[in-house]
Amino acid sequence: MALIVQKFGGSSVGSIERINAVADKVADARRAGDDIVVVVSAMSGETDRLLKLARDLAKAPNSRELDVLLSTGEQVTIALLSIALEARNCPALSFTGAQVCIRTDRAYNKARILEIDADKVKKCLAQGRVVVIAGFQGIDDDGNITTLGRGGSDTTAVAMAAALKADECRIYTDVDGVYTADPRIVSKARRLDTLTYEETLELASLGSKVLQIRSVEFASKYNVQLRVLSSFEEGPGTLITAEDETMEQAIISGIAHNKDEAKLTIVGVPDRPGIAYSILGPIADANIEVDMIVQNVGVDNLTDFTFTVHRNDYDKAMAILKKSAAGLGARDINGDTGIVKISVVGVGMRSHAGIASKMFNALAREGINIMMISTSEIKISVVVNEKYLELGVRTLHSEFGLENGQSN
Amino acid sequence: MALIVQKFGGSSVGSIERINAVADKVADARRAGDDIVVVVSAMSGETDRLLKLARDLAKAPNSRELDVLLSTGEQVTIALLSIALEARNCPALSFTGAQVCIRTDRAYNKARILEIDADKVKKCLAQGRVVVIAGFQGIDDDGNITTLGRGGSDTTAVAMAAALKADECRIYTDVDGVYTADPRIVSKARRLDTLTYEETLELASLGSKVLQIRSVEFASKYNVQLRVLSSFEEGPGTLITAEDETMEQAIISGIAHNKDEAKLTIVGVPDRPGIAYSILGPIADANIEVDMIVQNVGVDNLTDFTFTVHRNDYDKAMAILKKSAAGLGARDINGDTGIVKISVVGVGMRSHAGIASKMFNALAREGINIMMISTSEIKISVVVNEKYLELGVRTLHSEFGLENGQSN
Repeated sequence: MALIVQKFGGSSVGSIERINAVADKVADARRAGDDIVVVVSAMSGETDRLLKLARDLAKAPNSRELDVLLSTGEQVTIALLSIALEARNCPALSFTGAQVCIRTDRAYNKARILEIDADKVKKCLAQGRVVVIAGFQGIDDDGNITTLGRGGSDTTAVAMAAALKADECRIYTDVDGVYTADPRIVSKARRLDTLTYEETLELASLGSKVLQIRSVEFASKYNVQLRVLSSFEEGPGTLITAEDETMEQAIISGIAHNKDEAKLTIVGVPDRPGIAYSILGPIADANIEVDMIVQNVGVDNLTDFTFTVHRNDYDKAMAILKKSAAGLGARDINGDTGIVKISVVGVGMRSHAGIASKMFNALAREGINIMMISTSEIKISVVVNEKYLELGVRTLHSEFGLENGQSN
Repeated sequence: MALIVQKFGGSSVGSIERINAVADKVADARRAGDDIVVVVSAMSGETDRLLKLARDLAKAPNSRELDVLLSTGEQVTIALLSIALEARNCPALSFTGAQVCIRTDRAYNKARILEIDADKVKKCLAQGRVVVIAGFQGIDDDGNITTLGRGGSDTTAVAMAAALKADECRIYTDVDGVYTADPRIVSKARRLDTLTYEETLELASLGSKVLQIRSVEFASKYNVQLRVLSSFEEGPGTLITAEDETMEQAIISGIAHNKDEAKLTIVGVPDRPGIAYSILGPIADANIEVDMIVQNVGVDNLTDFTFTVHRNDYDKAMAILKKSAAGLGARDINGDTGIVKISVVGVGMRSHAGIASKMFNALAREGINIMMISTSEIKISVVVNEKYLELGVRTLHSEFGLENGQSN
């Protein structure tokens, strides 16, 4: 008998039919003998509906009251799922974030979980009940309702699993696991059986939307066994866990890509200390997040400085850069929104040399020009023209033998 | 400077436009210098929407979870109204029933308020904020969410006014006060300036839907000054208060009617002790509420026994009565759904004789046959054929001089 936390997202509970399907799945798991805690999101569309009401009343709705409003979405789902479970003679009890004391800081709309008191949940489990908990929400020290920001239900599930020392935290989504590449691009992409926290974090930050980054960090910190699996089909999904020295690890786990970036370059600025800050300081002040940064020192002690931002922030960033360029005496500025970032990710590359050259060589063979390069311990990313997206991803997927699950 | 509790029902907050109108009204009252506590219901239609979701999942939804579900309706409204107030630079703070510690018993779906801790509200008022409280909901000793049953927001408002020792509790509705009769029937019906708790209770129990009975009982118990007024028009409304010996009281305050009843008669049963219980016991066991009861002892020690129930319960009650009739050796049973109850109500009749005969005489003059009579200290009700509804109400309204506000 195991203790399992199951998390179902908005599309998994988006209608009466879906809620009934989830209730069947939960009741089956309970009857099989496991102790079950379920964390749910708001029904799909509900959060947007509530946000629209708020924005019809105020351009910038009060942040405390927004959390009071949005937290009702998950409260509706916990009640409905518990009603569906009780109707199946599966004893269930629902709890809001406040009722189960998910204590957070005071940052409305993007609060962080500080502490969870698991005693109430343990007591209910001991009575043989399924415990249904509202994701995405908590309560601060003064009893105000807080929310964790979009996707926060994943974090609730992982935090609850950590507090309960659950055997596994299962995140049910609309895909059946994490793949070696986007199956829409690479038909031979393969579902990964296991993945490390670090790899998952890199994949998530590279645009793979399977899990919220914070929830993976949380899982890593408290060593929670995470499993991503489909709420619509049977299957083992992908187990995300700590690196296991004993198992043979593939060098490369997957190829990720991100189409949401744009790059900006300031050309021919004097290379002196503080130049990077002079350029990126105003960008950061405008709350624009910068991803890759590359600087080359050229002739005459002049440097070219390139960075990428989200495409939505491109126009704003370009306007700021224009102002900075004048002050810095830059020769020129230019930008490109027609780019894509392709990355190879894998903990195995730590102990294997030559991954980068293998990657660059494969791309060169296909005539794909690399605009930017950035590396981390377990990831190499390149920026290329967006027309090479499919070709680039497929070439690398094949180059590293991912379709066979070989250890490359 | 006064402390005022304002309560707005579902139709008053049923849309973005209506919420904006309520926010204007609240902000104006605050700026005029009063301390304001607002109690709101769910947006009209929302409770029914949620109920439908629950009933799509289970024929008899779990009562605890139903309260978790339904309580979100008011939570949405408190957030939206607070957002609208903050957008007007009118500082506001919302509270759920749980947050403001509206402690109730454990009777889900129809809980009763036991205690309110007003300190939190007082503290917020002292900070110059408008306090916006979710009506209809509370919390039991174990932290479970409870609801007070339909119309419970009135009770929340009155209980909050009592706990705060507020100067007045204003119930905003879609009518501008309590009338001497239904204005759709009596064109000369007049808005009453004042009414006693007792009269209001009689009127409410007679089908006048202006206030929930429990809220009036609460107001009477704690001597809360209640005012019913329109959320759409200006006007003083009707003040409901304790009987005031010093003011000259009209003998009759109003004429009420109720079209929702049906009567059942069991004819020719032996008149022996316990006969009433033999007839009404099975009816009560089926959870059918009985309103009027009349028994006549006739010849041969046989008695006819007549009672009224809600029309929705007529078929069920008749089936039960048929079974009982056989066991009791009754001669016959019959029923009538084409009836109406007309009542005259007024605290003044306590000290004035002859009201009943004046009433019966007026009806007789118009050829209206009386089927049943029932009296209380401040009310006389008759059951007549429903075709006489309008004629009967108008005749009595005129007979007691209500269009002139005379003291009859």
